[in-house]
Amino acid sequence: MRRKVAQAVASSLWKTPATISERANTYIRTFAAAPYSYTPPGRNHLAVPGPVNIHEQVMRAMDRPSQNHRDPWFPPFFQQILEDTKYIFKTTEGTPFIFPGTGTGGWEVALTNTLSPGDKVVTFRYGQFSHLWIDMMQRLGLDVQVVEVEWGGGADEAKLEQILKADTDKKIKAVAVVHNETTTGVTSDIGQVRQVMDSVSHPALLLVDGVSSIGALDFRFDEWKVDAAVTGSQKALSLPTGLGLVAVSQKALEARKTAQLKRVYYDLEDQLATNPSGNVPYTPSIPLLYGLRETLGLIKAEGMDNVIARHHRLAEGTRKAVEGWGLKLLCKEPRWNSDSLTVIKTPEGVDSGKIVKEAYSRYNLSLGVGLSEVAGKVFRIGHLGNNDEVMVGSYLFGAEMAMISAGVPIEPGSGVSKAIEYWAATSNVIPTRG
Amino acid sequence: MRRKVAQAVASSLWKTPATISERANTYIRTFAAAPYSYTPPGRNHLAVPGPVNIHEQVMRAMDRPSQNHRDPWFPPFFQQILEDTKYIFKTTEGTPFIFPGTGTGGWEVALTNTLSPGDKVVTFRYGQFSHLWIDMMQRLGLDVQVVEVEWGGGADEAKLEQILKADTDKKIKAVAVVHNETTTGVTSDIGQVRQVMDSVSHPALLLVDGVSSIGALDFRFDEWKVDAAVTGSQKALSLPTGLGLVAVSQKALEARKTAQLKRVYYDLEDQLATNPSGNVPYTPSIPLLYGLRETLGLIKAEGMDNVIARHHRLAEGTRKAVEGWGLKLLCKEPRWNSDSLTVIKTPEGVDSGKIVKEAYSRYNLSLGVGLSEVAGKVFRIGHLGNNDEVMVGSYLFGAEMAMISAGVPIEPGSGVSKAIEYWAATSNVIPTRG
Amino acid sequence: MRRKVAQAVASSLWKTPATISERANTYIRTFAAAPYSYTPPGRNHLAVPGPVNIHEQVMRAMDRPSQNHRDPWFPPFFQQILEDTKYIFKTTEGTPFIFPGTGTGGWEVALTNTLSPGDKVVTFRYGQFSHLWIDMMQRLGLDVQVVEVEWGGGADEAKLEQILKADTDKKIKAVAVVHNETTTGVTSDIGQVRQVMDSVSHPALLLVDGVSSIGALDFRFDEWKVDAAVTGSQKALSLPTGLGLVAVSQKALEARKTAQLKRVYYDLEDQLATNPSGNVPYTPSIPLLYGLRETLGLIKAEGMDNVIARHHRLAEGTRKAVEGWGLKLLCKEPRWNSDSLTVIKTPEGVDSGKIVKEAYSRYNLSLGVGLSEVAGKVFRIGHLGNNDEVMVGSYLFGAEMAMISAGVPIEPGSGVSKAIEYWAATSNVIPTRG
Amino acid sequence: MRRKVAQAVASSLWKTPATISERANTYIRTFAAAPYSYTPPGRNHLAVPGPVNIHEQVMRAMDRPSQNHRDPWFPPFFQQILEDTKYIFKTTEGTPFIFPGTGTGGWEVALTNTLSPGDKVVTFRYGQFSHLWIDMMQRLGLDVQVVEVEWGGGADEAKLEQILKADTDKKIKAVAVVHNETTTGVTSDIGQVRQVMDSVSHPALLLVDGVSSIGALDFRFDEWKVDAAVTGSQKALSLPTGLGLVAVSQKALEARKTAQLKRVYYDLEDQLATNPSGNVPYTPSIPLLYGLRETLGLIKAEGMDNVIARHHRLAEGTRKAVEGWGLKLLCKEPRWNSDSLTVIKTPEGVDSGKIVKEAYSRYNLSLGVGLSEVAGKVFRIGHLGNNDEVMVGSYLFGAEMAMISAGVPIEPGSGVSKAIEYWAATSNVIPTRG
Repeated sequence: MRRKVAQAVASSLWKTPATISERANTYIRTFAAAPYSYTPPGRNHLAVPGPVNIHEQVMRAMDRPSQNHRDPWFPPFFQQILEDTKYIFKTTEGTPFIFPGTGTGGWEVALTNTLSPGDKVVTFRYGQFSHLWIDMMQRLGLDVQVVEVEWGGGADEAKLEQILKADTDKKIKAVAVVHNETTTGVTSDIGQVRQVMDSVSHPALLLVDGVSSIGALDFRFDEWKVDAAVTGSQKALSLPTGLGLVAVSQKALEARKTAQLKRVYYDLEDQLATNPSGNVPYTPSIPLLYGLRETLGLIKAEGMDNVIARHHRLAEGTRKAVEGWGLKLLCKEPRWNSDSLTVIKTPEGVDSGKIVKEAYSRYNLSLGVGLSEVAGKVFRIGHLGNNDEVMVGSYLFGAEMAMISAGVPIEPGSGVSKAIEYWAATSNVIPTRG
Repeated sequence: MRRKVAQAVASSLWKTPATISERANTYIRTFAAAPYSYTPPGRNHLAVPGPVNIHEQVMRAMDRPSQNHRDPWFPPFFQQILEDTKYIFKTTEGTPFIFPGTGTGGWEVALTNTLSPGDKVVTFRYGQFSHLWIDMMQRLGLDVQVVEVEWGGGADEAKLEQILKADTDKKIKAVAVVHNETTTGVTSDIGQVRQVMDSVSHPALLLVDGVSSIGALDFRFDEWKVDAAVTGSQKALSLPTGLGLVAVSQKALEARKTAQLKRVYYDLEDQLATNPSGNVPYTPSIPLLYGLRETLGLIKAEGMDNVIARHHRLAEGTRKAVEGWGLKLLCKEPRWNSDSLTVIKTPEGVDSGKIVKEAYSRYNLSLGVGLSEVAGKVFRIGHLGNNDEVMVGSYLFGAEMAMISAGVPIEPGSGVSKAIEYWAATSNVIPTRG
Repeated sequence: MRRKVAQAVASSLWKTPATISERANTYIRTFAAAPYSYTPPGRNHLAVPGPVNIHEQVMRAMDRPSQNHRDPWFPPFFQQILEDTKYIFKTTEGTPFIFPGTGTGGWEVALTNTLSPGDKVVTFRYGQFSHLWIDMMQRLGLDVQVVEVEWGGGADEAKLEQILKADTDKKIKAVAVVHNETTTGVTSDIGQVRQVMDSVSHPALLLVDGVSSIGALDFRFDEWKVDAAVTGSQKALSLPTGLGLVAVSQKALEARKTAQLKRVYYDLEDQLATNPSGNVPYTPSIPLLYGLRETLGLIKAEGMDNVIARHHRLAEGTRKAVEGWGLKLLCKEPRWNSDSLTVIKTPEGVDSGKIVKEAYSRYNLSLGVGLSEVAGKVFRIGHLGNNDEVMVGSYLFGAEMAMISAGVPIEPGSGVSKAIEYWAATSNVIPTRG
Repeated sequence: MRRKVAQAVASSLWKTPATISERANTYIRTFAAAPYSYTPPGRNHLAVPGPVNIHEQVMRAMDRPSQNHRDPWFPPFFQQILEDTKYIFKTTEGTPFIFPGTGTGGWEVALTNTLSPGDKVVTFRYGQFSHLWIDMMQRLGLDVQVVEVEWGGGADEAKLEQILKADTDKKIKAVAVVHNETTTGVTSDIGQVRQVMDSVSHPALLLVDGVSSIGALDFRFDEWKVDAAVTGSQKALSLPTGLGLVAVSQKALEARKTAQLKRVYYDLEDQLATNPSGNVPYTPSIPLLYGLRETLGLIKAEGMDNVIARHHRLAEGTRKAVEGWGLKLLCKEPRWNSDSLTVIKTPEGVDSGKIVKEAYSRYNLSLGVGLSEVAGKVFRIGHLGNNDEVMVGSYLFGAEMAMISAGVPIEPGSGVSKAIEYWAATSNVIPTRG
């Protein structure tokens, strides 16, 4: 195939390579027929649960020359951004930190700054990301009690209550929960987790992975008395990868003083020594900070509760489409339905990977594959962050075409019609367009 | 409404305007509630027949610092671009010109460089753009014989034959045709027009407005012996507005020598004096030339005939959706169906303007309004230039929601399902993704 | 040379072309050795009098997706921009127009909308641009009385007075003056021209080419009772080429009603019919309008009189450098010294083209060549628009290196030292950095 | 001051706030007078040793929408980049790694993957960055033997020889050296360090901080048998911050197997498990990878040895300027002169901070302040990465103005003249411009 394309291009173009630059162009085009090198017209339709489509206003904000962060413009600029991040965590009491890194780095911040080797942590495994966090805990030398939950399920509050009740000498130092499991489309109930902890008066820290929830779903740092919450720039914040954001409670900051896990790069100490004066311990990413400022501005302009409602509405339309297709969610209970992404089980005998492949190779649509245990069994549609009805509608439109191309027996329009119906019935006029 | 938004924003934000910069932000946001000032999440979905969505590769190519066009890099750069534009006109014999201006400017180039005051021109009026071109002809002092065609129709070859036959003393100096009428979604048959002219051996020049056709539809400058063909950068070339492109035949270049219409800015003379050495008579738009180079590169990589086929396939899917909705095209005969845009008649009693308004105010979708004679009676979906199935699918998806919001009695999914079915049945693997 | 580079690149890279993509890269690089194809590190230093370095904030403002100008956001957006352009013309009484085109197009607007074939115009020729405007007048069929002035001189007020006095039956319909002649670095005194016209009570229209002055130099549309003033986006406004801006007096709008020169594209009529409601007769360039809004914002933030003062200071430093080099200006009298650009005579026997060539080929510095009559005799340094001391200093720094490379006998540092001394002695703290 | 600006702006603008949007603009501008909020014309001149001016071609490469790194285009794309990074390390034997993080993160990679708690490391302290690396070593629990060197000096090979000789039972596991100390402008001689280690046949690992050297200075990973070398994207690679690049020898990969320092995020393990198939353990920064590809392309097109030569020539011109000013380098011996940056001692009694402040507040020039021990005593000019003669010339030009404004008694032109003389005498024609 590849060779044929190259030949076709070459033959049609090699006719009159009169000038050296013309010849160069010909060669370039011929060899450019390497796998995945051709760029089709239209655009890549990005329907994965991260990275997320960047708002054009944010793209613009990031496209700027280097600046010197040691010049005096930087401290007030950075302080304002740091302050504004509190809004997405719904916290006034917590202290926010911004690390050059990823959500994985944020996990390391949350663990190493609060715990010591051998400390006992209770947590749940119900997907690839909770699994990887557990792996990190174990490699750091923590004593991890893993509650195994079948994939598709969320944090089991009854089981947690039982464990905490049994821990009469308070050996458990932390409860760690992945809020939204991006492998399965399951949102656990952090409020309930907190209630369980309170009900048995357990003093453990509450550490939350909010990577695919914070900025998209209802997250209440103060109300839920979360001690460390982690997110990354490339999820609900709809930025490129590169920032790990962590909010930390006063209690966690206290715990830090005795926490013995080794940490340097991800130590809060150096941030605490510099942030109050608007400075940072490492050279910051200027484009990402401008992007973060802009994305927080968009979120504030929309209003966090409106952002949450939008996510719910987009997710609800997507779930209606799935129902229209006659397919099932991987998520086992409606109360755990994720508004960040939808994970769809393919019928027995249909390789979900084929759908994803058809989507990408025919329609330039990027769907999420099934990971690890559910590889080949599910595909994922991300609708967190910078999205609207027509965008998510286009993912559903493309997913229908891809399923048909992959031989999944669905009726054309069976899903999109449900989403159209729901969104048209519940739409609002965009502010200032009344 | 506006005031309310402003107040809401203000009240929620005025709580603790502790710092001057905070207060500034508050003010900005409050006043930003001016009409159309709020930018919603997602993106603006641009479904009009120009300006067209710019390919991200072209966006990137244009985003560059100023350069000096008198430095020696410019001549080979410009010559290559000029040479490459021939590809979209399908000409090797014509001479291409690039003017800083618009398609309207291109019209002026075509007329003033070939005709003299009082010269007789035959042309058709079947939409707003053919009307405006006629207006220009008249204001320039030409003697215009207008064949009136009901909107929805195209160039009437029989009528033309009759006129040309009657012109025994060859008073008619030019036949001027709008290839694709953007008001009505009608593509006239230029090949037939040429055949008629040849059949009666009429020596008139053939001037063609290809603004919404060239680069999208089948256009054959050499084969059809076109004498002047005009397009603009913001249509099929999917660039911002700013370039008027004109291809001119040898015969037209000859006609130029006796053409007495006054022209300076749009005179070919200054271009002919400078272009052969790679120079230009006016300071060129560097970003647009880089963009043009990139967009021509994309078209060449896809192959012009593939581009034409893609336009047909996208248009065909759109027409199937219209059929699914139970609506009618404004275009009266299938042979005139435009593959650049689709113009849809709304049912008796439904103001098409309401659909367009709902689309924009609720779904951030920009549909084309009905212009002039068909204002309120049609809406338009553009699918020329940089588009793919999922993009056009999203326009259809959004149009369904907008029609429902506007109270048009259509069944959700009735249109999109037809497009999905058709495109899934006819899709191809994208080159290099096999 | 070229071949050698290609071979060197090829030999070092052809070692292990293991993969197809590697081979492609090699070819690309080899052939990329076509003339002017290699991009050196650093940046291109643009020191010509247009196009001008675009401010990074303006670059950002322009880098945006297409939008539909028929959506309701456009009219208030455009009206505000139109209104804001008055600021750079210093007019409240004039009516501003924005055409998709260039300064040359602006000339055509000014002439065709005010005059009739055979009308008498008095004007001066003292450089290539005044020459080209005269050429346009003649081609349009005007009766042009040209006052020839030796290049390096400006508008000769005494001569004008004599001509106007002699015109007892008021046959002269317009006085046309190029405010700043970009070929020679001469700024004529429009205030004096007006005074002469008033002193003899001559009713002729005053038409001014302000292409390289408006937005940079002191220009007073209302005070000088200018009837039409023209500029282009790529000069003091520091945008890409593509907009012709024209301000027109009430008197000129009246004259329009009887003006018989043919005009369609550049007719004010269609603008007057659409602008008041915020609309435009031709598809507008969305990126350029956003850029214009931003650049006007920067000018307003700085304050027009501060902009003028900055231009003077930068020009004065440049002239001090020229003096330090022991070279002469082409401009004959200090009262005509241009603050937009400096045109420097090279010593007898030194080809100025060689300096420009060395600057570009060795230091990636773009200086302006001598045009037409002064080709080979002068080189030009532009300092209009978006510039500051360090930028202009870098042009002087590069010009010194280029002159040395070209064999001009100057003392290293002889010019830059004077500019440093002057600017350091007269510098101000940048607002908000106190 | 600030208030005054705000008032001035307000008074001049509050005259006719006729419309709401006008009022909004006024408010915005008034409040925008917050410290450092005004953006002057021209540009920020960035003369610090990181972040570095990004090449416009790289800017463009990074300005792109999100993409899904799990789509099949990613593995070949990433593998090629990883392979290409070897070029700047001058290695074919080492294994390169790219972490989302900073140079500090790279330090952690180098240490934690090779060493165990209590391991003995020998290193030098001669600046702030060597100090911070030592701090990291100590916090990680290593037994660090610090050789203190007066700031301005480099790695003392004699002292190292003595220490290694004395280590008869090979307790020393690693020698750690900062190649280019960015606080002092000192480049240590890694080749000599290796020779000393070899001369005493010491088996310790050689760990090198190449953050401000690799990609700019002569660095020979294979020849010098370096075991781990670290750099960051924002230095010689002239990208935004966000990537920590580390090359690791086979010997270090072996050491990894027994190294007991805790590591998870910065563990090579997860990279080694994924990179060979073109994958990554954490969501990558798509823009930075495109930028890295482009910057490596520029370096390869120029040729690494030409890059090194360019750095030397730019540095040499800068040092000649310093000599012209009659000032001294902080660097104590010419053999240690850094070609990445120049650190200049101010005369007794002159606060270097004042020069930096004047440069920024008057001329929008960002110079590097003196850090820690040399705060107030030196200022720094960065000339690494994307720079050319005119750019560095502009830093020198601006530095002269700033010194004069700060009252340093230097003769205008005394420095820049020397740089002009040297660069003009040693310049070359840019490839393809011959």
